[in-house]
Amino acid sequence: MTSMQVQTLKGFRDFLSLEARKRQYIITTLKGVFERYGFEQMETPVLEYEELLAGKYGEEGEKLMYRFEDQGKRRVAMRYDQTVPLARVVAQYKNDLPTPFKRYQIQPVWRADKPQKGRYREFFQCDIDTVGVDSALADAEIIATVATAYQALGFTNSKILINDRAVFKNLPAAAITVIDKLKKIGKEGVWKELIDKNLVGSLEEAKIVLQELLDSQPTERLVAIIEALESFGVNTDIIEFSPTLARGLDYYTGLIFEIETPDYPHGSLCGGGRYNNLIGMFAGEQIPAVGLAVGFDRTLEAMDALNLFPTDLAGSTTKVLVTIFGEEFKASSIEICSRLRSNNIATEIYLGDIKAKNPLEKQLKYANQKNIPYAIIIGADEMKTGTVMLKNLQKREQKQIKLEEAIIELDK
Amino acid sequence: MTSMQVQTLKGFRDFLSLEARKRQYIITTLKGVFERYGFEQMETPVLEYEELLAGKYGEEGEKLMYRFEDQGKRRVAMRYDQTVPLARVVAQYKNDLPTPFKRYQIQPVWRADKPQKGRYREFFQCDIDTVGVDSALADAEIIATVATAYQALGFTNSKILINDRAVFKNLPAAAITVIDKLKKIGKEGVWKELIDKNLVGSLEEAKIVLQELLDSQPTERLVAIIEALESFGVNTDIIEFSPTLARGLDYYTGLIFEIETPDYPHGSLCGGGRYNNLIGMFAGEQIPAVGLAVGFDRTLEAMDALNLFPTDLAGSTTKVLVTIFGEEFKASSIEICSRLRSNNIATEIYLGDIKAKNPLEKQLKYANQKNIPYAIIIGADEMKTGTVMLKNLQKREQKQIKLEEAIIELDK
Repeated sequence: MTSMQVQTLKGFRDFLSLEARKRQYIITTLKGVFERYGFEQMETPVLEYEELLAGKYGEEGEKLMYRFEDQGKRRVAMRYDQTVPLARVVAQYKNDLPTPFKRYQIQPVWRADKPQKGRYREFFQCDIDTVGVDSALADAEIIATVATAYQALGFTNSKILINDRAVFKNLPAAAITVIDKLKKIGKEGVWKELIDKNLVGSLEEAKIVLQELLDSQPTERLVAIIEALESFGVNTDIIEFSPTLARGLDYYTGLIFEIETPDYPHGSLCGGGRYNNLIGMFAGEQIPAVGLAVGFDRTLEAMDALNLFPTDLAGSTTKVLVTIFGEEFKASSIEICSRLRSNNIATEIYLGDIKAKNPLEKQLKYANQKNIPYAIIIGADEMKTGTVMLKNLQKREQKQIKLEEAIIELDK
Repeated sequence: MTSMQVQTLKGFRDFLSLEARKRQYIITTLKGVFERYGFEQMETPVLEYEELLAGKYGEEGEKLMYRFEDQGKRRVAMRYDQTVPLARVVAQYKNDLPTPFKRYQIQPVWRADKPQKGRYREFFQCDIDTVGVDSALADAEIIATVATAYQALGFTNSKILINDRAVFKNLPAAAITVIDKLKKIGKEGVWKELIDKNLVGSLEEAKIVLQELLDSQPTERLVAIIEALESFGVNTDIIEFSPTLARGLDYYTGLIFEIETPDYPHGSLCGGGRYNNLIGMFAGEQIPAVGLAVGFDRTLEAMDALNLFPTDLAGSTTKVLVTIFGEEFKASSIEICSRLRSNNIATEIYLGDIKAKNPLEKQLKYANQKNIPYAIIIGADEMKTGTVMLKNLQKREQKQIKLEEAIIELDK
């Protein structure tokens, strides 16, 4: 046993204390907005028939998907994304689902990718999709939802890049893939790659191809989407028509969009679009859909960098530690702990040994280690006068007050 | 593609709409109580090194554990419970964790068991544990936490059975396993099995062995636990000393307990106890721990049977559907939808085609299918007078009122 490596697998993470609270904060905030916008939670199993997922994620997916044979000799695979499971659900419960079917899904997925900064083998996806309608209003609502979500998370300076697949008209896929890199490699880079890949005959032609795209006007559909966004109350100043934005071209059939912020210029925070040819794959018919994926880890990184997490997250979930001064004060301390809890105050009572020489020191050390902001002490005098000593551990202040007053202060 | 079985694996489940909301309700309620009692959320990866989990769950575990070789030729296994991962975490982050370390964990686990009513291959476990202290107070707090949790879920008639491993004294494990079945097989059954298994020499001896156990008195530790429970405000009338309660004997070293309700007599809702020899398995030292597991699916079944879910859960997450009377009302309808959402009211706007002959009919049908309780209609008269028509779809009533009044009504 001692020779065993006690560790997580590479690319896998435990989430404890502050990290767990940050993730929880994001999830709770997103869920709140999604539900306010009429999306309902859905969860699918971690394992699916391999046959169902195989061939859906290109060459890379075939390589990176976790799959195996189970005890019943079935070939099974671990969730690789949330879109194929959504397509299965749409086919499987066809007659029971409302149209449109608006769902959100926040679950981990697994990809045996090379782990590196910001890339994990187990990571959360967070998707919302509206399935079954092909309206500009549905397109706009997806964007409005996530714009509100990022506002709720505290982002004040985000930009919404939008495009329409139709803008690319007759450009070959290979050329679009090159042009999609404009931001990274610049105009010269795009020209060069268009020539190198024999997508154009000359530099002149390359310049024309790119410039024509850059001069494109928003399509009628985009205009309708932007109009609806305005009615939804989205500040249209932050919406930018970006005719070179492609995002996995094979996938999208109409709207394509991304949200980014100049305050954290390390890629987009989320993105999505309309994809009318995918969700019907198991149902045997075309089913329109529009959706988006929140980049969960990227968003968390950005919030860290921009200090968007509420400061009290850095503390403990627990608001106050009730100490036990000695055996004879135990029952009173437990009762006070209970009173605080039933007043909805996250409270701990010291559970360790209290027979030490200086019992309080150890208890306050525990509070400090856990960043618990308050401690309550009940000694002989407090017992006699029906009060408690409330210690603010950060300000190093204390006052002897009635429990009711302490509850009010702790409830703030 | 068409020949493919579009379905979930046997023993695996999708969670949609009402089912998802019920689960969410339980999780949110439990989390609220756990955090109020000072337990912090923890999550561990789905995959662990197989070596870490192997040999920890007996013969059955070896058979039922999902495991495979990953792309990097590592042997990996899927989470089988949350206790072994907790033991790993305790060893791995030893120097960073507070003592006691109080965590809750609500994640799925996988067991390739034969699926049957109430038994799944993927199911939620919901554990709380206090690691690092061996006090009666910690024991009592675990019970007090879960007693409060079941109260918060709406159970009004639960019973807490408690026992102490020490009550079994020198009884051989095999005899305890037999006696643990007392409720199922009755006294005669126990006597018979004790004889059949050669654990006693005669019927007389069997009777004495069982009777002596039944006559046991609560240990000093149990008395201290019950005292603390009383201080915690737990109604001691519902606590029952149950000297035959064993629950996986090898595991527990002190307190053993279960919560059950006569209102749903299909096994215990949750159970746990003190297990001082397990959590240190990777740390190479003895680390005391007390904890419990909520039977998630059983609890959900019981709540269903006892009608403990709030009635509004049966409806939709969405409170109101804003309809679109026609193209010229679209912008107003979207704006009203936005106003409602920014007032924290879960609102949908109809996203489908509105060019049909009778556009409202289709929209109200959608609201009915989704059990959305209210609809708002904005027609020419409403536009002119700055009002909305608020339809209560259950009561089939409607009134033309100011948006502000509608918000107040919907916010109820």
